[in-house]
Amino acid sequence: MTDRAPRVAVCGAGVADPLLEAVAEEVGRGIARGGGVLICGGLGGVMAAAARGAAAAGGLTIGLLPGADPAAADPAIAVPLATGLGEARNVLVARTAGAVVAIGGEWGTLSEVAFAMKVGIPVVLLRPAALTAALPIPTAATPAEAVSWALERARRRA
Amino acid sequence: MTDRAPRVAVCGAGVADPLLEAVAEEVGRGIARGGGVLICGGLGGVMAAAARGAAAAGGLTIGLLPGADPAAADPAIAVPLATGLGEARNVLVARTAGAVVAIGGEWGTLSEVAFAMKVGIPVVLLRPAALTAALPIPTAATPAEAVSWALERARRRA
Amino acid sequence: MTDRAPRVAVCGAGVADPLLEAVAEEVGRGIARGGGVLICGGLGGVMAAAARGAAAAGGLTIGLLPGADPAAADPAIAVPLATGLGEARNVLVARTAGAVVAIGGEWGTLSEVAFAMKVGIPVVLLRPAALTAALPIPTAATPAEAVSWALERARRRA
Amino acid sequence: MTDRAPRVAVCGAGVADPLLEAVAEEVGRGIARGGGVLICGGLGGVMAAAARGAAAAGGLTIGLLPGADPAAADPAIAVPLATGLGEARNVLVARTAGAVVAIGGEWGTLSEVAFAMKVGIPVVLLRPAALTAALPIPTAATPAEAVSWALERARRRA
Repeated sequence: MTDRAPRVAVCGAGVADPLLEAVAEEVGRGIARGGGVLICGGLGGVMAAAARGAAAAGGLTIGLLPGADPAAADPAIAVPLATGLGEARNVLVARTAGAVVAIGGEWGTLSEVAFAMKVGIPVVLLRPAALTAALPIPTAATPAEAVSWALERARRRA
Repeated sequence: MTDRAPRVAVCGAGVADPLLEAVAEEVGRGIARGGGVLICGGLGGVMAAAARGAAAAGGLTIGLLPGADPAAADPAIAVPLATGLGEARNVLVARTAGAVVAIGGEWGTLSEVAFAMKVGIPVVLLRPAALTAALPIPTAATPAEAVSWALERARRRA
Repeated sequence: MTDRAPRVAVCGAGVADPLLEAVAEEVGRGIARGGGVLICGGLGGVMAAAARGAAAAGGLTIGLLPGADPAAADPAIAVPLATGLGEARNVLVARTAGAVVAIGGEWGTLSEVAFAMKVGIPVVLLRPAALTAALPIPTAATPAEAVSWALERARRRA
Repeated sequence: MTDRAPRVAVCGAGVADPLLEAVAEEVGRGIARGGGVLICGGLGGVMAAAARGAAAAGGLTIGLLPGADPAAADPAIAVPLATGLGEARNVLVARTAGAVVAIGGEWGTLSEVAFAMKVGIPVVLLRPAALTAALPIPTAATPAEAVSWALERARRRA
């Protein structure tokens, strides 16, 4: 364990319903309040909502973008890292965090969850969807629970 | 459609039981007999078995290795491409094929399946395991059925 | 132009002589004082020296590591992003910055410089070495000049 | 050493003058005649010319494309691997070969040459351009010499 801020990734769809976005925003806020750095894919939907929450609470937000243009990042992303790697940047979102909170669950999110599990990054689900609900992965009942779970694990990998 | 050989990826665990390996070998053989190029992760288990089957039937076998040493490839791999990208090479296995046959299903396989679905590469399951059995993805009853399904789709993306 | 902090990458060898390290530290300090975020490869030598300079001046330091272990980052890296991509992370160091300062010049540095030029990221050299001295790229006479040049360009790509 | 075919990458600009293309075609032909597999970036100019030469001589041609569409590959590419990684695929071209022949030399080519040198893949230059001419890398006088040099080294890393 170091005195670095824990890094928590929030994964979720780029287009999401308002309920999931509200959940993501609360997760982002919680990460920031807990002293964490938010990592996400940098675009809309769940990613943007989590970044808004974290930024509003004064936290650092890093967006790993698929494209080469940092201007594509959501305004709540403080540090856009435009990887130019396309969807392959998903593996970076999963791998560079100390823990992952996956909200909802479409194919892109599932790819991040599965990759994180493969390489040993802890994952917690929140409001899992059909693709993710049956996975042998802990599911948090509330945003606060997901944040607490993820921050604790991310601190060990800070 | 071109007159290029269709590329079919076979995904599965690097350590697998003999039954899954036998299935993978039959899939590899079928891909080669159907004129396809086999793409896989280049290592053991399902990957090696599929490569053995394809090579025995005279097919081309390409292994996208995680490490930087081509000598780590299974002997049945004719063209080892040692990416040096670590587990991130999973996204290349999924993305560079015209269709994917996923055998069994551990976390790494699931990451490839989910990534392929995300980017629009057709996937068929064979002997799905707990992590993959509930996915809304076609499941083939036999190796022959999986091969036929995958080759047909890979020909459209050759 | 946005109101985001400009991102400047500092590239250079992982083992460097004290003079180059002193130059790198001054560059890092200048980036931070100018309100910039430092991006580097996260390891020793020039990378670590630049991070030390930036951190000492209160700046944010991001290290894109080749390996999968964030603990391998130099202590001056506030946000280690352990990509697991091996040396291929060099292209991310070059691509995710708004401008690049290349100090000295061994093969790895040259790969970053060339990749940045290929994809249109501005590069300035400082104390170029044999491999880089003849390139048609601006050379700064002092760390301050390099920082000023890079920050100005990075602000346009913030 | 194995009995695998040696893999030789040919790097060069996507738009090239007829002289360089003629040289590249001869290199491709030589690689195929020597029993080698050609790896390249899969697009036009030097890449396409090398692939034409290799294909005409009955050799296997693999194109590592930046985009996600295999149909973008030059017709002489037998196995298009559409990485979707953008220009970052340059590092794969360099890394997955057993040796590299670099023809001409623009920024993209230089990035491949420098990356190959960084990770220990042998490189030979042919008709170097301003960016590459001063590098401490062997220069071949003729296509035949470049092919012979590269095949010999690629056989040790087959």
